[in-house]
Amino acid sequence: MSLDPVLARIDSDLEAATDRLLDLLRIPSISTDPAFKAECDRAADWLVADLQSLGAEASKRPTSGHPMVVGHIDGPGPHLLFYGHYDVQPVDPLTLWDRDPFDPQIEDTPRGRVIRGRGSSDDKGQLMTFVEACRAWKAEHGELPCKITFFFEGEEESGSPSLIPFMKDNAAELTADIALICDTGLFDSRVPAITTMLRGLLGEEVCITGPDKDLHSGMYGGAAMNPIRVLARIIAALHDDTGRITVPGFYDGVPEIPDALKAQWDGLGFDASAFLGDVGLADPAGEQGRSALEMLWSRPTCEVNGISGGYEGDGFKTVLPSKASAKISFRLVGQQDPHALRESFRDHVRSMVPADCKVEFKGHGASPASVMSTDHPAFEAARQALSDEWPDAAAYVGCGGSIPIAGYFKNLLDMDAMLIGFGKDDDQIHSPNEKYDLESFHKGIRSWARVLAAVS
Amino acid sequence: MSLDPVLARIDSDLEAATDRLLDLLRIPSISTDPAFKAECDRAADWLVADLQSLGAEASKRPTSGHPMVVGHIDGPGPHLLFYGHYDVQPVDPLTLWDRDPFDPQIEDTPRGRVIRGRGSSDDKGQLMTFVEACRAWKAEHGELPCKITFFFEGEEESGSPSLIPFMKDNAAELTADIALICDTGLFDSRVPAITTMLRGLLGEEVCITGPDKDLHSGMYGGAAMNPIRVLARIIAALHDDTGRITVPGFYDGVPEIPDALKAQWDGLGFDASAFLGDVGLADPAGEQGRSALEMLWSRPTCEVNGISGGYEGDGFKTVLPSKASAKISFRLVGQQDPHALRESFRDHVRSMVPADCKVEFKGHGASPASVMSTDHPAFEAARQALSDEWPDAAAYVGCGGSIPIAGYFKNLLDMDAMLIGFGKDDDQIHSPNEKYDLESFHKGIRSWARVLAAVS
Repeated sequence: MSLDPVLARIDSDLEAATDRLLDLLRIPSISTDPAFKAECDRAADWLVADLQSLGAEASKRPTSGHPMVVGHIDGPGPHLLFYGHYDVQPVDPLTLWDRDPFDPQIEDTPRGRVIRGRGSSDDKGQLMTFVEACRAWKAEHGELPCKITFFFEGEEESGSPSLIPFMKDNAAELTADIALICDTGLFDSRVPAITTMLRGLLGEEVCITGPDKDLHSGMYGGAAMNPIRVLARIIAALHDDTGRITVPGFYDGVPEIPDALKAQWDGLGFDASAFLGDVGLADPAGEQGRSALEMLWSRPTCEVNGISGGYEGDGFKTVLPSKASAKISFRLVGQQDPHALRESFRDHVRSMVPADCKVEFKGHGASPASVMSTDHPAFEAARQALSDEWPDAAAYVGCGGSIPIAGYFKNLLDMDAMLIGFGKDDDQIHSPNEKYDLESFHKGIRSWARVLAAVS
Repeated sequence: MSLDPVLARIDSDLEAATDRLLDLLRIPSISTDPAFKAECDRAADWLVADLQSLGAEASKRPTSGHPMVVGHIDGPGPHLLFYGHYDVQPVDPLTLWDRDPFDPQIEDTPRGRVIRGRGSSDDKGQLMTFVEACRAWKAEHGELPCKITFFFEGEEESGSPSLIPFMKDNAAELTADIALICDTGLFDSRVPAITTMLRGLLGEEVCITGPDKDLHSGMYGGAAMNPIRVLARIIAALHDDTGRITVPGFYDGVPEIPDALKAQWDGLGFDASAFLGDVGLADPAGEQGRSALEMLWSRPTCEVNGISGGYEGDGFKTVLPSKASAKISFRLVGQQDPHALRESFRDHVRSMVPADCKVEFKGHGASPASVMSTDHPAFEAARQALSDEWPDAAAYVGCGGSIPIAGYFKNLLDMDAMLIGFGKDDDQIHSPNEKYDLESFHKGIRSWARVLAAVS
């Protein structure tokens, strides 16, 4: 089966493909807001119908939350599972949108044509790149070069409560040779990327109690322990002067990245000054002796996401507060064990709390890092296919964020996952005026058509 | 002029004196709330009439805020100025009061009879102890043993905006040999006190800015500087491991208290365990090697009164915030210069801010400590008089809080001030269910009658 006519058909069908995407974007499938439950259901129905229109056997599958969509197209060659999500983030503050977020349109901008609307990039537009690639193959050749399972979730933006149970209950149906995930980005507009490292996440809330009530700082100050002072000392001690994190055992399981990958990263020409300059900073703030890209992609972090205590309003109040609290999160890499680190962190904090104070912890998310082995031949095949489509060669990259689904495929279904996406840094996902470049959509479809050929 | 019949008259007139106080307490003279402006005026009128009823030449004196009340009674001997305030704190939350705060009454409690109502202790009840002592002297002997000026303020609970201008404009009229202030407490129910040391106060707000917008902690964490981490390191570094404050020059002008005073304090038998135990603490938190009483009365402090930054709501948000801020205050003693320390503090903080972050300061109050010289013979005379009235000998004590009026008398009118009061720690001033022990009121009046005799 020849690739060229498939690519030609994608080019000629682009306007129709875009119209289909706009149609899907009009459905306000906000998963976290119960008011939009019926709309999530409608988006699932739309996808079932669309998959059926290109010849897939597809159905909406109920869960205790929003439904999953599962579809199959038989074919020769390897079996690929494709994952995407049809739910979107809330749109508030609505006043910051330049147009109705669910009345999408194509806009001409100084940086090129874009598809504007909630979900255009995250993740409906990305999801449809794969669907459209399959449609073109099927239309041109009457069949696909490989066997495909489509797996669409409707709860990705609201914590995926049904995902693990559904994967366990349907393990046989969802197991394939490899999983493809389209929820990441290009390295830049010239360099496509396969994301092979995602950081994990551990969240902890720490509350220090000193006196059992708020006190007058004149009447008690000096003699009574101030919990903000205790908390500040704890936070200050979480990093040493070289930027390393001091929790005992924290670096257990943190690997040095292989030389070959490091050389590839160095070759990307990542502009740390521009990256930090965009947000008003100049100096990489992490471990001394590491590049900014290493800090982001391959090194663990400890960040304080919030802190609170005492009087926070306008003016001044000379209170000596009873309580102070902080939300602290760790991005994890390699084989770091979030559960072991949670205990080690708590012990470490307890060791710094004076006898006169109490500490309470509240645990939040705990997910390990995902490090994809690129040994599966699909990785090199896909990298070549992407390099053929885009101006420069594709790179294996890391990602500072966390996408738990990649780990679930590995741990629950024993499948490697390959993360390929076409989003750009300025897509404003989760923010007002989300967009997806028309180039991302068009070349994204062509990229998947090439990947299907390459891995088959 | 003999003291004994004056004391007897005070005893026999107690019920009438209490009724007069209840009458004054019924006026809701909340100075901070403009809705009660007319009530403040009414309280001033009440006091003018009451002073006139005992033979004073008294008048209400307008200011740009609430009026002052000034009265004079001529007499032999020294000239004493008495200061008190007729305004009260707001009463919210009203639901925590067991009765209408402005419908005062005498209540029997397990600890004795109390006068319950807003202002009963702070400061209407205390103010009236002096007025009633003068009334008894005048009634018994037809004159007072000394010349008296009464000076009542109506803005003490709302920052005293008119006080300094009024004192400057009326300096000649308000200047006396010594000022008496009744706005402090007993050391305990057996030991009366003359407060000779009040701490000063310096307030600073510190805001650290890192990135110029809130960032995603996955996408930027590690490479971008977190302002909460910067702020925590600054706060942690404000005390060394022995509890001393690290601001350069901070201890300039901090005296060791004289041995005689220290010996007197040691003799008070202050129960640090009970004091801290009342608020759920056990260990004095200040400088190592100092007693809790020293920490409270004679040592400077640095307290964080509030801290804020990032996400402070329920749950978790993996934000790397742009800003973090803290409200920090210092209690000052001896000759510490608040203005010099403000600059030293700011330089100290700036030295700890990384090049990539910005720091902004907002200055709040700056008042030096008040340390009263007890050289004036009125001090020892009053101490003896108080010792005659109460079970145990009177003590010279410190106070951790700040009462700026004492410093104003010294700086503006070159008068020493003697702070004598009869409040107790459990009076719940500024809080719901404020009370004043009937014993405080009765023995307070008797105490002032004795002081008037002693200093004349």
